Amino acid sequence: MYAARRTRLRERCNAGGSAAALVTRPANVRYLAGAAPHGAVLLLGRHEDLLVCQSPPDDRPYEGRPDEAVRVQVLPQPGGDPAVAAAGLAQTQGADSLAIEEHHLTVARHRALASVASRLRLADLGGAVEQLRVVKDEEEISCLRIGAEIADQALGELLESILVGRTERHLALELERRLVDHGADGPAFPTSVATGPNSGRRGHRPTDRRVEEGDFLSVCLGAAYRGYRCEIGRTFVIGTSPADWQIQLYDLVFAAQRAGREALAPGAAYRDVDRAARQVLDSAGYAEGLQSLTGHGVGLEIDEDPQLAPAAMGKLDACVPVTVEPGVHLPGRGGVRIDDTLVVRPEADGGPELLTITTKELLAL
Amino acid sequence: MYAARRTRLRERCNAGGSAAALVTRPANVRYLAGAAPHGAVLLLGRHEDLLVCQSPPDDRPYEGRPDEAVRVQVLPQPGGDPAVAAAGLAQTQGADSLAIEEHHLTVARHRALASVASRLRLADLGGAVEQLRVVKDEEEISCLRIGAEIADQALGELLESILVGRTERHLALELERRLVDHGADGPAFPTSVATGPNSGRRGHRPTDRRVEEGDFLSVCLGAAYRGYRCEIGRTFVIGTSPADWQIQLYDLVFAAQRAGREALAPGAAYRDVDRAARQVLDSAGYAEGLQSLTGHGVGLEIDEDPQLAPAAMGKLDACVPVTVEPGVHLPGRGGVRIDDTLVVRPEADGGPELLTITTKELLAL
Repeated sequence: MYAARRTRLRERCNAGGSAAALVTRPANVRYLAGAAPHGAVLLLGRHEDLLVCQSPPDDRPYEGRPDEAVRVQVLPQPGGDPAVAAAGLAQTQGADSLAIEEHHLTVARHRALASVASRLRLADLGGAVEQLRVVKDEEEISCLRIGAEIADQALGELLESILVGRTERHLALELERRLVDHGADGPAFPTSVATGPNSGRRGHRPTDRRVEEGDFLSVCLGAAYRGYRCEIGRTFVIGTSPADWQIQLYDLVFAAQRAGREALAPGAAYRDVDRAARQVLDSAGYAEGLQSLTGHGVGLEIDEDPQLAPAAMGKLDACVPVTVEPGVHLPGRGGVRIDDTLVVRPEADGGPELLTITTKELLAL
Repeated sequence: MYAARRTRLRERCNAGGSAAALVTRPANVRYLAGAAPHGAVLLLGRHEDLLVCQSPPDDRPYEGRPDEAVRVQVLPQPGGDPAVAAAGLAQTQGADSLAIEEHHLTVARHRALASVASRLRLADLGGAVEQLRVVKDEEEISCLRIGAEIADQALGELLESILVGRTERHLALELERRLVDHGADGPAFPTSVATGPNSGRRGHRPTDRRVEEGDFLSVCLGAAYRGYRCEIGRTFVIGTSPADWQIQLYDLVFAAQRAGREALAPGAAYRDVDRAARQVLDSAGYAEGLQSLTGHGVGLEIDEDPQLAPAAMGKLDACVPVTVEPGVHLPGRGGVRIDDTLVVRPEADGGPELLTITTKELLAL
C-alpha cells in the first residue's frame, strides 16, 4: 500500500522532470512511509526510498511503523537537519534534480539544502502528496470510522452527566479524557466547548465560563485513531424548554447542514456543496458574518483538501471524507453549529456515509 | 514595554539597512505586539506598527491583548495571507527594503510576498527577535514563577493519589486537568508520564502501560501562564523499598543535575553548564546514549535559546530562565530524569533562582 503510493508520486515526479523527491511535511511523510518520527523526512531516490530521522522511530502502534521497503537512516549527530542530509545523499546518488515541498520548507532550510547539494536542480513538488491524499482507501476510511465511533461515545457519555455550573474548560478536558478512555490516540484537535454567548463560534477555545440554564451549548470534538482525525459538532440547549429563537435558529442551521449533506455526491463541485448549505442561511438573512467555508476534508490532518467554500475549484470524488459544518453565531447571544464527518459515496452505494451518528435532534439537557 | 521591544528591534533593522520588518513567527509577534491571533503578522513600518490579522483578536486574557500603540488591521477577505498583505502595505508606504524571518517563512509564502511587493528588497531578519527574547524582564519571570507554582501544585496532588494500576496516559491527562484547575492557560507542552522500562526517556509520550510495584515513574510537565511556559521533571519509585540499582542511578542523576544547577551564573558558557552535568554521567560510564542537551531556555515557547549543549556557543546572562534536565535511560530497565526551571541570577542576588520547588529526594510512593 505505501509502496503503491510512493510509485504514484514517483510517476508524477518523473513526469515533471525530477528523478528524486524530498518529502518534508510530516503528514505526507507518514502517508508515504507509514511513519513520521519527529523531524523525519522521506527521500524518494532513484534506487531506494529512505526515511532520514533524527532518532530511531518509536515502537508505538499509533505512531505507525515505517514500511519495510523503506530504509531507515538515523543521523549520526544530534541536531542536524534530516532534509539537508537527505539532499546531500540524493546528490551523492547521482540525481540531477530534486523536487521539494516549497509550501513546507522554510527559506532558511531551503538555502541550507541548496548549499549542501549545489549540483542539484531544485524543483517544486507543490501539493502533489496532498492531492494523492484526498481520495482515501478503505483502510483509511476504517480508521476514520473508528475515530468517529470513539467521538460519538465520548459525547454520549458527557450528555448523561450534569452540566450546569461546570466550566467550558473542564467539559473540554473531560471529553478529551473520555476520547482516550475509548481508545483514541488523543484528541484530533483542541476540543471546543462553547456556552451561552460563545456558542456557535467555530474553533472557540474554552474559557472559564460556566454552563447556565437557558444556554446554548455547542461542542466540537474528534478522535485521532492510528493517525486519522475526524470531527463531530453538536449544539444543545440547557434546561427543559428552549426559547423560540433557539428553536428557530436550530432548525435553520439544521436545514442548512442537511442541504450540505444531501449535496455530497461524486462529481459535485466543492462550491456547489458549500452553496447548498450557505444559501439556506443567506436567504434567512444571515449572509453577514458567515464562516468562510462550510466543510473540509479530513484524514491524517484535521483540515485537509478539499475546502468546501465559495471560491473552491474542483469536484468531489467517491471515498473523499469531508465535514459539513455550517453555523450561525449572533454576537452577544450565541448560536448553533452542527458538524458531521461523512464519506462521499455514489448513489448506487447508498449515497454519503455518515460517520458521526450522534442524534441531531435539538436535545434539552 | 512592547513599544520598547519594538524600538530595540527597529534599531537593529535600521543598522542592518532595512527600514521595515515583517515578523511572522507567532511567539515573536506576541513578544512584540502583546498578542498573536491565529495567523497574525506584525509589520514594523516606517511610520507605524501594524498587526495584520485574518480575524479580529479574541478577548481572552491568556491570549494577550494587542498593545495600544499597534494598529490592528483585519483582512477584508477570509483566506488571505496576512504576510502578503503586510508586504504590500510596506511597499505602498514607501519602504524600499523589508527584513523577513527566513527561518519561519516557507519558500512558497516568500515567493507570494516577493511577487506582491516586487519593488521591495527582501532582507533576512534572522533570529533577531529570538535573541531579544533570551533575557527576560521581571514581568516575564513573574509569569514563569506562577506557572512553576501551578506545576508544583499539580504534581504534589498527583503524588498523594494512588498510582499503582493506572496507565501513563491517564496520569498525564489527570496532571493536565489539575494544571487547568490551578489556573494554567493549559499544559505548556504534552505532559510526559513514563513508567518502568519507559522511565527516564526524554519526551516519552504516554502509553497504556500501567504503573507497577517496583517501577521507576518519571513525570515531566509544565504550565502555560499568560503565554509563558515552564517545565518540571521528577522521578519516583513505586513501592516501599527502591532497589539498589535504582538508588545508585538516582543519586548519580541527582549529582549531575546539581552540578548543572551550580554552574548557572552570569557569564558562564552554555557548553560549560552542559559539561558540568554531563561529565558526572560520563565518568560513571554513561557516555553512550546521553541526550544531546542538558537544558534549554524557556519563555513564550517551551524550547527557546539558549541550548545547553556540547557545541553551543555563547554565555549566560542574568535573568535568563533555563531548564537543567540531565537523565539516564537504560534500555529495557528504565531510568531517571530530574528537571528544574531556574533563572540565572548573580551571586550577589543569591545565585540561580529555583522556580520549580518540588522536592528532589527519591520518594517511594
